[in-house]
Amino acid sequence: MKKMSKSIRDIDLKEVKTNLTRFIGKTVKSAGFNKVIFGLSGGLDSGVIAYLSKEALGAKNIIAAILPYNKIDPDGIRLANQIIDELKIKKYIINIAPMLDGYFKNYFSAADNIRRGNKMARERMAILYDLSKKENALVIGSSNKTETLLGYCTLYGDTACALKPLVYLYKTQVSMLAEYLGLPKTVIKRKPTAGLWEGQTDEEEIGYSYNEIDKLLWLMFERRMTDDELKKEGFDKKFINDIRKRIKKSEFKRKTPLTPLK
Amino acid sequence: MKKMSKSIRDIDLKEVKTNLTRFIGKTVKSAGFNKVIFGLSGGLDSGVIAYLSKEALGAKNIIAAILPYNKIDPDGIRLANQIIDELKIKKYIINIAPMLDGYFKNYFSAADNIRRGNKMARERMAILYDLSKKENALVIGSSNKTETLLGYCTLYGDTACALKPLVYLYKTQVSMLAEYLGLPKTVIKRKPTAGLWEGQTDEEEIGYSYNEIDKLLWLMFERRMTDDELKKEGFDKKFINDIRKRIKKSEFKRKTPLTPLK
Repeated sequence: MKKMSKSIRDIDLKEVKTNLTRFIGKTVKSAGFNKVIFGLSGGLDSGVIAYLSKEALGAKNIIAAILPYNKIDPDGIRLANQIIDELKIKKYIINIAPMLDGYFKNYFSAADNIRRGNKMARERMAILYDLSKKENALVIGSSNKTETLLGYCTLYGDTACALKPLVYLYKTQVSMLAEYLGLPKTVIKRKPTAGLWEGQTDEEEIGYSYNEIDKLLWLMFERRMTDDELKKEGFDKKFINDIRKRIKKSEFKRKTPLTPLK
Repeated sequence: MKKMSKSIRDIDLKEVKTNLTRFIGKTVKSAGFNKVIFGLSGGLDSGVIAYLSKEALGAKNIIAAILPYNKIDPDGIRLANQIIDELKIKKYIINIAPMLDGYFKNYFSAADNIRRGNKMARERMAILYDLSKKENALVIGSSNKTETLLGYCTLYGDTACALKPLVYLYKTQVSMLAEYLGLPKTVIKRKPTAGLWEGQTDEEEIGYSYNEIDKLLWLMFERRMTDDELKKEGFDKKFINDIRKRIKKSEFKRKTPLTPLK
Protein backbone atom coordinates (compact mmCIF):
# COMPACT_ATOMS: atom_id res chain seq x y z
CA MET A 1 0.00 0.00 0.00
CA LYS A 2 1.13 3.49 -0.85
CA LYS A 3 1.93 5.45 2.29
CA MET A 4 -0.14 8.55 2.94
CA SER A 5 1.77 11.80 2.57
CA LYS A 6 1.95 13.97 5.67
CA SER A 7 1.82 17.37 4.01
CA ILE A 8 1.79 19.07 0.62
CA ARG A 9 5.59 19.09 0.69
CA ASP A 10 5.87 15.37 1.44
CA ILE A 11 6.43 14.14 -2.13
CA ASP A 12 9.16 12.01 -3.66
CA LEU A 13 10.66 14.36 -6.24
CA LYS A 14 12.76 11.67 -7.87
CA GLU A 15 9.67 9.55 -8.42
CA VAL A 16 7.63 12.52 -9.68
CA LYS A 17 10.35 13.39 -12.17
CA THR A 18 10.60 9.79 -13.41
CA ASN A 19 6.84 9.42 -13.77
CA LEU A 20 6.30 12.69 -15.61
CA THR A 21 9.25 12.18 -17.92
CA ARG A 22 7.94 8.73 -18.79
CA PHE A 23 4.41 10.11 -19.26
CA ILE A 24 5.65 12.76 -21.72
CA GLY A 25 7.81 10.30 -23.66
CA LYS A 26 5.10 7.65 -23.97
CA THR A 27 2.25 10.03 -24.75
CA VAL A 28 4.14 11.86 -27.48
CA LYS A 29 5.32 8.63 -29.13
CA SER A 30 1.96 6.93 -29.00
CA ALA A 31 0.33 9.96 -30.63
CA GLY A 32 2.77 9.43 -33.51
CA PHE A 33 4.95 12.47 -32.76
CA ASN A 34 8.56 13.07 -31.74
CA LYS A 35 8.39 16.73 -30.81
CA VAL A 36 6.57 19.05 -28.43
CA ILE A 37 6.00 22.79 -28.51
CA PHE A 38 4.99 25.06 -25.64
CA GLY A 39 4.68 28.70 -24.67
CA LEU A 40 7.56 29.80 -22.47
CA SER A 41 6.70 32.74 -20.22
CA GLY A 42 9.77 32.90 -18.01
CA GLY A 43 7.68 31.54 -15.13
CA LEU A 44 7.85 28.40 -13.07
CA ASP A 45 5.34 26.10 -14.74
CA SER A 46 6.37 26.46 -18.36
CA GLY A 47 10.00 26.33 -17.21
CA VAL A 48 9.39 22.96 -15.57
CA ILE A 49 7.68 21.76 -18.76
CA ALA A 50 10.76 22.78 -20.74
CA TYR A 51 13.13 20.86 -18.46
CA LEU A 52 10.93 17.76 -18.25
CA SER A 53 10.38 17.71 -22.02
CA LYS A 54 14.07 17.94 -22.72
CA GLU A 55 14.66 15.05 -20.31
CA ALA A 56 11.94 12.99 -22.04
CA LEU A 57 12.58 13.78 -25.69
CA GLY A 58 16.00 15.40 -26.05
CA ALA A 59 16.83 19.03 -26.82
CA LYS A 60 16.39 18.69 -30.58
CA ASN A 61 12.74 17.65 -30.15
CA ILE A 62 11.48 20.53 -28.09
CA ILE A 63 10.47 23.98 -29.26
CA ALA A 64 9.74 27.01 -27.08
CA ALA A 65 7.57 29.93 -28.16
CA ILE A 66 7.96 33.29 -26.45
CA LEU A 67 4.71 35.15 -27.08
CA PRO A 68 4.86 38.60 -25.45
CA TYR A 69 2.49 41.50 -25.82
CA ASN A 70 4.96 44.26 -26.70
CA LYS A 71 7.14 44.98 -23.67
CA ILE A 72 4.64 44.53 -20.83
CA ASP A 73 6.73 41.76 -19.27
CA PRO A 74 10.43 42.28 -20.12
CA ASP A 75 11.57 40.09 -17.19
CA GLY A 76 9.53 37.23 -18.57
CA ILE A 77 11.20 37.50 -21.97
CA ARG A 78 14.66 37.68 -20.42
CA LEU A 79 14.09 34.63 -18.20
CA ALA A 80 12.53 32.63 -21.03
CA ASN A 81 15.59 33.35 -23.16
CA GLN A 82 17.82 32.29 -20.28
CA ILE A 83 16.06 28.90 -20.12
CA ILE A 84 16.30 28.51 -23.91
CA ASP A 85 20.03 29.25 -23.86
CA GLU A 86 20.57 26.84 -21.01
CA LEU A 87 18.64 23.99 -22.63
CA LYS A 88 19.88 24.80 -26.17
CA ILE A 89 16.47 24.45 -27.78
CA LYS A 90 14.77 25.96 -30.81
CA LYS A 91 12.67 29.05 -30.24
CA TYR A 92 10.11 31.33 -31.83
CA ILE A 93 9.51 34.88 -30.65
CA ILE A 94 6.21 36.31 -31.81
CA ASN A 95 4.80 39.59 -30.53
CA ILE A 96 1.03 39.16 -30.21
CA ALA A 97 0.33 42.92 -30.24
CA PRO A 98 -0.64 43.20 -33.94
CA MET A 99 -3.40 40.58 -33.49
CA LEU A 100 -4.61 41.89 -30.13
CA ASP A 101 -4.62 45.50 -31.29
CA GLY A 102 -6.28 44.49 -34.56
CA TYR A 103 -9.19 43.33 -32.44
CA PHE A 104 -9.47 45.74 -29.53
CA LYS A 105 -8.44 48.95 -31.30
CA ASN A 106 -10.81 48.28 -34.21
CA TYR A 107 -13.82 46.92 -32.35
CA PHE A 108 -13.70 47.21 -28.55
CA SER A 109 -11.30 49.90 -27.44
CA ALA A 110 -13.05 50.17 -24.05
CA ALA A 111 -12.66 46.47 -23.15
CA ASP A 112 -11.35 45.76 -19.63
CA ASN A 113 -8.22 43.90 -18.58
CA ILE A 114 -10.06 40.61 -18.07
CA ARG A 115 -11.30 40.53 -21.65
CA ARG A 116 -7.87 41.56 -22.93
CA GLY A 117 -6.14 38.93 -20.80
CA ASN A 118 -8.43 36.15 -22.01
CA LYS A 119 -8.01 37.18 -25.64
CA MET A 120 -4.23 37.13 -25.15
CA ALA A 121 -4.34 33.61 -23.73
CA ARG A 122 -6.47 32.41 -26.67
CA GLU A 123 -4.20 34.14 -29.20
CA ARG A 124 -1.24 32.33 -27.65
CA MET A 125 -3.09 29.02 -27.92
CA ALA A 126 -3.94 29.67 -31.60
CA ILE A 127 -0.28 30.47 -32.33
CA LEU A 128 0.97 27.37 -30.51
CA TYR A 129 -1.46 25.22 -32.53
CA ASP A 130 -0.37 26.90 -35.74
CA LEU A 131 3.27 26.22 -34.90
CA SER A 132 2.26 22.71 -33.90
CA LYS A 133 1.08 22.15 -37.48
CA LYS A 134 4.16 23.83 -38.98
CA GLU A 135 6.61 21.89 -36.81
CA ASN A 136 4.68 18.63 -36.47
CA ALA A 137 4.97 18.98 -32.70
CA LEU A 138 2.37 18.29 -30.01
CA VAL A 139 1.27 21.20 -27.84
CA ILE A 140 2.23 20.46 -24.24
CA GLY A 141 0.47 22.49 -21.56
CA SER A 142 1.68 23.68 -18.17
CA SER A 143 -1.56 23.89 -16.13
CA ASN A 144 -1.06 22.87 -12.52
CA LYS A 145 -3.63 21.65 -9.99
CA THR A 146 -3.84 24.93 -8.06
CA GLU A 147 -4.81 27.08 -11.02
CA THR A 148 -7.06 24.36 -12.41
CA LEU A 149 -9.03 24.17 -9.15
CA LEU A 150 -9.22 27.95 -8.77
CA GLY A 151 -10.16 28.37 -12.42
CA TYR A 152 -7.24 30.78 -12.68
CA CYS A 153 -6.87 30.07 -16.38
CA THR A 154 -8.53 30.83 -19.70
CA LEU A 155 -10.84 28.20 -21.15
CA TYR A 156 -9.57 27.26 -24.63
CA GLY A 157 -6.55 29.47 -23.91
CA ASP A 158 -3.80 28.17 -21.63
CA THR A 159 -5.93 25.12 -20.78
CA ALA A 160 -5.94 23.96 -24.41
CA CYS A 161 -3.25 21.42 -25.26
CA ALA A 162 -2.65 17.78 -26.13
CA LEU A 163 -1.13 16.79 -22.80
CA LYS A 164 -0.94 18.29 -19.31
CA PRO A 165 1.82 16.67 -17.25
CA LEU A 166 1.57 18.98 -14.22
CA VAL A 167 -2.16 18.86 -13.63
CA TYR A 168 -1.93 16.75 -10.46
CA LEU A 169 0.74 18.93 -8.83
CA TYR A 170 -0.03 21.97 -6.69
CA LYS A 171 1.92 25.17 -7.39
CA THR A 172 4.00 24.55 -4.24
CA GLN A 173 4.97 21.14 -5.58
CA VAL A 174 5.78 22.49 -9.05
CA SER A 175 8.11 24.91 -7.30
CA MET A 176 9.81 22.06 -5.43
CA LEU A 177 10.16 20.14 -8.70
CA ALA A 178 11.67 23.22 -10.35
CA GLU A 179 14.42 23.30 -7.73
CA TYR A 180 14.99 19.57 -8.10
CA LEU A 181 15.30 19.91 -11.88
CA GLY A 182 17.79 22.75 -11.50
CA LEU A 183 15.87 25.63 -13.06
CA PRO A 184 17.54 29.03 -12.74
CA LYS A 185 17.03 30.53 -9.26
CA THR A 186 15.74 33.73 -10.86
CA VAL A 187 12.90 31.78 -12.47
CA ILE A 188 12.02 29.96 -9.26
CA LYS A 189 12.04 33.11 -7.15
CA ARG A 190 10.06 35.23 -9.57
CA LYS A 191 6.59 36.36 -8.47
CA PRO A 192 4.09 34.28 -10.46
CA THR A 193 2.40 36.31 -13.20
CA ALA A 194 0.16 35.44 -16.11
CA GLY A 195 1.72 38.43 -17.93
CA LEU A 196 -1.71 39.84 -18.71
CA TRP A 197 -0.87 43.45 -17.99
CA GLU A 198 2.08 45.43 -16.75
CA GLY A 199 3.05 44.57 -13.19
CA GLN A 200 0.27 41.99 -12.84
CA THR A 201 0.89 39.20 -10.32
CA ASP A 202 -1.29 36.14 -9.77
CA GLU A 203 -1.31 36.49 -6.00
CA GLU A 204 -2.47 40.11 -5.99
CA GLU A 205 -5.19 39.25 -8.47
CA ILE A 206 -6.40 36.21 -6.53
CA GLY A 207 -6.01 38.01 -3.21
CA TYR A 208 -4.06 35.30 -1.36
CA SER A 209 -0.59 33.81 -1.59
CA TYR A 210 -0.08 30.47 -3.34
CA ASN A 211 1.51 29.23 -0.13
CA GLU A 212 -1.69 29.84 1.87
CA ILE A 213 -3.98 28.67 -0.94
CA ASP A 214 -2.08 25.44 -1.49
CA LYS A 215 -2.11 24.51 2.19
CA LEU A 216 -5.87 24.93 2.20
CA LEU A 217 -6.47 23.16 -1.12
CA TRP A 218 -4.33 20.26 -0.07
CA LEU A 219 -6.37 19.68 3.08
CA MET A 220 -9.62 20.17 1.14
CA PHE A 221 -8.81 17.78 -1.68
CA GLU A 222 -6.19 15.33 -0.39
CA ARG A 223 -7.63 15.09 3.15
CA ARG A 224 -11.27 15.85 2.24
CA MET A 225 -11.59 18.12 5.28
CA THR A 226 -14.89 19.83 6.02
CA ASP A 227 -15.09 23.57 6.65
CA ASP A 228 -15.31 22.95 10.42
CA GLU A 229 -12.16 20.85 10.34
CA LEU A 230 -10.41 23.51 8.26
CA LYS A 231 -11.37 26.19 10.78
CA LYS A 232 -9.90 24.02 13.55
CA GLU A 233 -6.67 23.93 11.51
CA GLY A 234 -6.63 27.72 11.85
CA PHE A 235 -7.94 28.81 8.47
CA ASP A 236 -10.04 31.96 8.34
CA LYS A 237 -13.73 31.55 7.49
CA LYS A 238 -13.68 34.20 4.77
CA PHE A 239 -10.60 32.65 3.18
CA ILE A 240 -12.26 29.21 3.06
CA ASN A 241 -15.44 30.71 1.59
CA ASP A 242 -13.59 32.73 -1.03
CA ILE A 243 -11.68 29.70 -2.23
CA ARG A 244 -14.76 27.44 -2.24
CA LYS A 245 -16.59 30.10 -4.27
CA ARG A 246 -13.78 30.26 -6.82
CA ILE A 247 -13.80 26.49 -7.20
CA LYS A 248 -17.57 26.40 -7.66
CA LYS A 249 -17.67 29.37 -10.06
CA SER A 250 -15.02 27.89 -12.33
CA GLU A 251 -16.61 24.46 -12.65
CA PHE A 252 -17.45 25.08 -16.31
CA LYS A 253 -13.76 25.44 -17.13
CA ARG A 254 -13.14 21.85 -16.08
CA LYS A 255 -15.95 20.42 -18.20
CA THR A 256 -16.08 19.32 -21.82
CA PRO A 257 -18.94 20.74 -23.92
CA LEU A 258 -22.35 19.43 -22.88
CA THR A 259 -24.25 17.27 -25.33
CA PRO A 260 -27.83 15.98 -25.38
CA LEU A 261 -28.31 12.33 -24.50
CA LYS A 262 -28.47 10.27 -27.61
CA MET B 1 -38.32 -0.64 -26.24
CA LYS B 2 -37.28 2.02 -28.72
CA LYS B 3 -37.83 0.85 -32.28
CA MET B 4 -34.77 0.56 -34.48
CA SER B 5 -34.62 3.14 -37.27
CA LYS B 6 -34.53 1.73 -40.80
CA SER B 7 -32.27 4.32 -42.39
CA ILE B 8 -30.47 7.58 -41.69
CA ARG B 9 -33.60 9.45 -42.77
CA ASP B 10 -35.89 7.49 -40.46
CA ILE B 11 -36.00 10.01 -37.58
CA ASP B 12 -38.91 11.66 -35.81
CA LEU B 13 -38.27 15.35 -36.50
CA LYS B 14 -40.90 16.55 -34.07
CA GLU B 15 -39.28 14.54 -31.28
CA VAL B 16 -35.79 15.71 -32.26
CA LYS B 17 -36.91 19.33 -32.20
CA THR B 18 -38.58 18.93 -28.80
CA ASN B 19 -35.56 17.18 -27.28
CA LEU B 20 -33.00 19.64 -28.55
CA THR B 21 -35.05 22.68 -27.61
CA ARG B 22 -35.48 21.29 -24.11
CA PHE B 23 -31.75 20.44 -23.92
CA ILE B 24 -30.77 24.01 -24.84
CA GLY B 25 -33.26 25.58 -22.43
CA LYS B 26 -32.29 23.38 -19.48
CA THR B 27 -28.54 23.52 -20.05
CA VAL B 28 -28.43 27.30 -20.37
CA LYS B 29 -30.58 27.82 -17.26
CA SER B 30 -28.70 25.35 -15.11
CA ALA B 31 -25.41 27.03 -16.03
CA GLY B 32 -26.90 30.23 -14.60
CA PHE B 33 -27.36 31.98 -17.95
CA ASN B 34 -30.29 33.26 -20.01
CA LYS B 35 -28.57 33.96 -23.29
CA VAL B 36 -26.56 32.18 -25.95
CA ILE B 37 -24.18 33.47 -28.61
CA PHE B 38 -23.00 31.70 -31.75
CA GLY B 39 -21.19 32.29 -35.00
CA LEU B 40 -23.60 32.48 -37.94
CA SER B 41 -22.01 31.54 -41.25
CA GLY B 42 -25.05 31.45 -43.50
CA GLY B 43 -24.80 27.66 -43.59
CA LEU B 44 -27.06 24.88 -42.44
CA ASP B 45 -25.71 23.96 -39.03
CA SER B 46 -25.40 27.39 -37.47
CA GLY B 47 -28.77 28.27 -39.04
CA VAL B 48 -30.39 25.34 -37.23
CA ILE B 49 -28.73 26.44 -34.00
CA ALA B 50 -30.22 29.91 -34.46
CA TYR B 51 -33.74 28.57 -34.98
CA LEU B 52 -33.55 26.04 -32.13
CA SER B 53 -32.09 28.63 -29.74
CA LYS B 54 -34.83 31.10 -30.51
CA GLU B 55 -37.39 28.38 -29.88
CA ALA B 56 -35.74 27.50 -26.55
CA LEU B 57 -34.87 30.94 -25.18
CA GLY B 58 -36.80 33.59 -27.14
CA ALA B 59 -35.45 36.06 -29.69
CA LYS B 60 -34.24 38.58 -27.11
CA ASN B 61 -31.89 36.00 -25.57
CA ILE B 62 -29.95 34.99 -28.63
CA ILE B 63 -27.08 36.77 -30.30
CA ALA B 64 -25.54 35.98 -33.68
CA ALA B 65 -21.99 36.90 -34.69
CA ILE B 66 -21.09 37.16 -38.36
CA LEU B 67 -17.31 36.78 -38.53
CA PRO B 68 -16.15 37.03 -42.15
CA TYR B 69 -12.65 37.30 -43.50
CA ASN B 70 -13.05 40.32 -45.76
CA LYS B 71 -15.32 39.39 -48.68
CA ILE B 72 -14.25 35.82 -49.33
CA ASP B 73 -17.78 34.52 -48.70
CA PRO B 74 -20.33 37.23 -49.61
CA ASP B 75 -23.15 34.66 -49.98
CA GLY B 76 -22.56 33.53 -46.42
CA ILE B 77 -22.85 37.07 -45.09
CA ARG B 78 -26.03 37.68 -47.08
CA LEU B 79 -27.69 34.47 -45.90
CA ALA B 80 -26.65 35.03 -42.29
CA ASN B 81 -28.23 38.49 -42.42
CA GLN B 82 -31.37 36.96 -43.92
CA ILE B 83 -31.67 34.58 -40.94
CA ILE B 84 -31.04 37.42 -38.50
CA ASP B 85 -33.75 39.56 -40.12
CA GLU B 86 -36.18 36.68 -40.09
CA LEU B 87 -35.57 35.80 -36.42
CA LYS B 88 -35.23 39.44 -35.32
CA ILE B 89 -32.17 38.84 -33.17
CA LYS B 90 -29.20 40.90 -32.09
CA LYS B 91 -26.07 40.67 -34.20
CA TYR B 92 -22.38 41.54 -34.31
CA ILE B 93 -20.43 41.80 -37.53
CA ILE B 94 -16.69 41.63 -37.05
CA ASN B 95 -14.23 41.27 -39.92
CA ILE B 96 -11.43 38.97 -38.75
CA ALA B 97 -8.98 40.17 -41.41
CA PRO B 98 -7.04 42.64 -39.18
CA MET B 99 -6.21 39.85 -36.71
CA LEU B 100 -5.47 37.20 -39.34
CA ASP B 101 -3.33 39.55 -41.41
CA GLY B 102 -1.59 40.80 -38.28
CA TYR B 103 -0.35 37.25 -37.84
CA PHE B 104 0.30 35.88 -41.31
CA LYS B 105 1.55 39.06 -43.00
CA ASN B 106 3.94 39.82 -40.15
CA TYR B 107 5.23 36.35 -39.39
CA PHE B 108 4.25 33.61 -41.86
CA SER B 109 3.32 35.07 -45.24
CA ALA B 110 3.97 31.71 -46.94
CA ALA B 111 1.56 29.71 -44.76
CA ASP B 112 -0.81 27.38 -46.62
CA ASN B 113 -4.63 27.37 -46.65
CA ILE B 114 -4.90 24.72 -43.96
CA ARG B 115 -2.94 26.81 -41.47
CA ARG B 116 -4.90 29.92 -42.42
CA GLY B 117 -8.22 28.09 -42.13
CA ASN B 118 -7.39 26.74 -38.69
CA LYS B 119 -6.24 30.14 -37.46
CA MET B 120 -9.50 31.64 -38.73
CA ALA B 121 -11.57 29.06 -36.85
CA ARG B 122 -9.62 29.76 -33.64
CA GLU B 123 -9.92 33.52 -34.09
CA ARG B 124 -13.69 33.09 -34.43
CA MET B 125 -13.74 31.02 -31.23
CA ALA B 126 -11.74 33.66 -29.35
CA ILE B 127 -14.14 36.39 -30.52
CA LEU B 128 -17.21 34.36 -29.55
CA TYR B 129 -15.74 33.81 -26.08
CA ASP B 130 -14.93 37.49 -25.77
CA LEU B 131 -18.50 38.39 -26.73
CA SER B 132 -19.71 35.69 -24.36
CA LYS B 133 -18.04 37.62 -21.54
CA LYS B 134 -19.32 40.97 -22.76
CA GLU B 135 -22.90 39.76 -23.22
CA ASN B 136 -23.04 37.22 -20.40
CA ALA B 137 -24.12 34.61 -22.96
CA LEU B 138 -23.06 30.98 -23.30
CA VAL B 139 -21.28 29.95 -26.49
CA ILE B 140 -23.42 27.38 -28.30
CA GLY B 141 -21.67 25.27 -30.97
CA SER B 142 -22.99 23.76 -34.16
CA SER B 143 -20.78 20.69 -34.65
CA ASN B 144 -22.67 17.74 -36.12
CA LYS B 145 -21.84 14.03 -35.96
CA THR B 146 -20.56 13.79 -39.53
CA GLU B 147 -17.88 16.46 -39.17
CA THR B 148 -17.02 15.27 -35.67
CA LEU B 149 -16.37 11.72 -36.88
CA LEU B 150 -14.43 12.88 -39.95
CA GLY B 151 -12.47 15.37 -37.88
CA TYR B 152 -13.59 18.01 -40.36
CA CYS B 153 -13.25 20.73 -37.78
CA THR B 154 -10.60 22.76 -35.95
CA LEU B 155 -9.63 21.63 -32.46
CA TYR B 156 -10.20 24.55 -30.05
CA GLY B 157 -11.78 26.40 -32.96
CA ASP B 158 -15.30 25.51 -34.08
CA THR B 159 -15.29 22.54 -31.67
CA ALA B 160 -14.89 24.85 -28.65
CA CYS B 161 -18.15 25.81 -26.95
CA ALA B 162 -20.23 25.28 -23.83
CA LEU B 163 -22.89 23.09 -25.44
CA LYS B 164 -23.24 21.13 -28.67
CA PRO B 165 -26.86 20.28 -29.40
CA LEU B 166 -26.31 18.78 -32.87
CA VAL B 167 -23.47 16.42 -32.10
CA TYR B 168 -25.59 13.26 -32.41
CA LEU B 169 -27.12 14.23 -35.77
CA TYR B 170 -25.54 13.45 -39.11
CA LYS B 171 -25.34 16.26 -41.68
CA THR B 172 -28.21 14.64 -43.62
CA GLN B 173 -30.37 14.76 -40.50
CA VAL B 174 -29.42 18.37 -39.72
CA SER B 175 -30.59 19.20 -43.23
CA MET B 176 -33.93 17.46 -42.61
CA LEU B 177 -34.29 19.32 -39.34
CA ALA B 178 -33.54 22.61 -41.14
CA GLU B 179 -36.47 22.01 -43.49
CA TYR B 180 -38.72 21.05 -40.60
CA LEU B 181 -37.77 24.23 -38.70
CA GLY B 182 -38.52 26.34 -41.79
CA LEU B 183 -35.06 27.74 -42.53
CA PRO B 184 -34.81 29.74 -45.77
CA LYS B 185 -34.59 27.43 -48.81
CA THR B 186 -31.49 29.32 -49.97
CA VAL B 187 -29.69 28.33 -46.76
CA ILE B 188 -30.75 24.69 -47.02
CA LYS B 189 -29.75 24.37 -50.66
CA ARG B 190 -26.41 26.08 -50.31
CA LYS B 191 -23.28 23.97 -50.86
CA PRO B 192 -21.73 23.40 -47.43
CA THR B 193 -18.59 25.47 -46.91
CA ALA B 194 -16.41 26.23 -43.93
CA GLY B 195 -15.71 29.61 -45.57
CA LEU B 196 -11.98 29.08 -45.24
CA TRP B 197 -11.04 30.45 -48.65
CA GLU B 198 -12.80 31.77 -51.69
CA GLY B 199 -15.00 29.18 -53.38
CA GLN B 200 -14.10 26.46 -50.86
CA THR B 201 -16.69 23.70 -50.38
CA ASP B 202 -16.58 20.93 -47.77
CA GLU B 203 -17.40 18.17 -50.26
CA GLU B 204 -14.63 19.09 -52.70
CA GLU B 205 -12.16 19.27 -49.86
CA ILE B 206 -13.22 15.94 -48.34
CA GLY B 207 -13.52 14.32 -51.77
CA TYR B 208 -16.98 12.78 -51.32
CA SER B 209 -20.53 14.07 -50.98
CA TYR B 210 -22.15 14.31 -47.54
CA ASN B 211 -24.93 12.14 -48.91
CA GLU B 212 -22.53 9.25 -49.67
CA ILE B 213 -20.49 9.80 -46.52
CA ASP B 214 -23.52 9.84 -44.25
CA LYS B 215 -24.97 6.62 -45.67
CA LEU B 216 -21.65 4.93 -44.99
CA LEU B 217 -21.13 6.44 -41.53
CA TRP B 218 -24.66 5.52 -40.49
CA LEU B 219 -24.10 1.85 -41.34
CA MET B 220 -20.66 1.92 -39.69
CA PHE B 221 -21.77 3.52 -36.45
CA GLU B 222 -25.50 2.83 -36.05
CA ARG B 223 -25.39 -0.68 -37.53
CA ARG B 224 -21.78 -1.49 -36.58
CA MET B 225 -21.19 -3.05 -40.02
CA THR B 226 -17.81 -4.58 -40.84
CA ASP B 227 -15.96 -3.65 -44.02
CA ASP B 228 -17.09 -6.88 -45.68
CA GLU B 229 -20.71 -6.11 -44.91
CA LEU B 230 -20.26 -2.56 -46.19
CA LYS B 231 -18.81 -3.87 -49.45
CA LYS B 232 -21.84 -6.15 -49.83
CA GLU B 233 -23.98 -3.03 -49.44
CA GLY B 234 -22.25 -1.70 -52.55
CA PHE B 235 -19.68 0.68 -51.03
CA ASP B 236 -16.36 1.00 -52.77
CA LYS B 237 -13.30 -0.37 -50.95
CA LYS B 238 -11.28 2.82 -51.42
CA PHE B 239 -14.16 4.96 -50.14
CA ILE B 240 -14.49 2.82 -47.00
CA ASN B 241 -10.73 2.97 -46.40
CA ASP B 242 -10.53 6.72 -46.94
CA ILE B 243 -13.29 7.35 -44.43
CA ARG B 244 -11.89 4.90 -41.86
CA LYS B 245 -8.51 6.62 -42.20
CA ARG B 246 -10.06 10.06 -41.61
CA ILE B 247 -11.81 8.81 -38.49
CA LYS B 248 -8.64 7.22 -37.13
CA LYS B 249 -6.43 10.21 -37.98
CA SER B 250 -8.73 12.67 -36.23
CA GLU B 251 -9.08 10.73 -32.98
CA PHE B 252 -7.08 13.38 -31.09
CA LYS B 253 -9.72 15.99 -31.91
CA ARG B 254 -12.32 14.04 -29.95
CA LYS B 255 -10.14 13.67 -26.85
CA THR B 256 -9.59 15.93 -23.87
CA PRO B 257 -5.96 16.66 -22.96
CA LEU B 258 -4.10 13.62 -21.65
CA THR B 259 -2.95 13.66 -18.05
CA PRO B 260 -0.63 11.40 -16.04
CA LEU B 261 -2.31 9.02 -13.63
CA LYS B 262 -2.44 10.49 -10.20
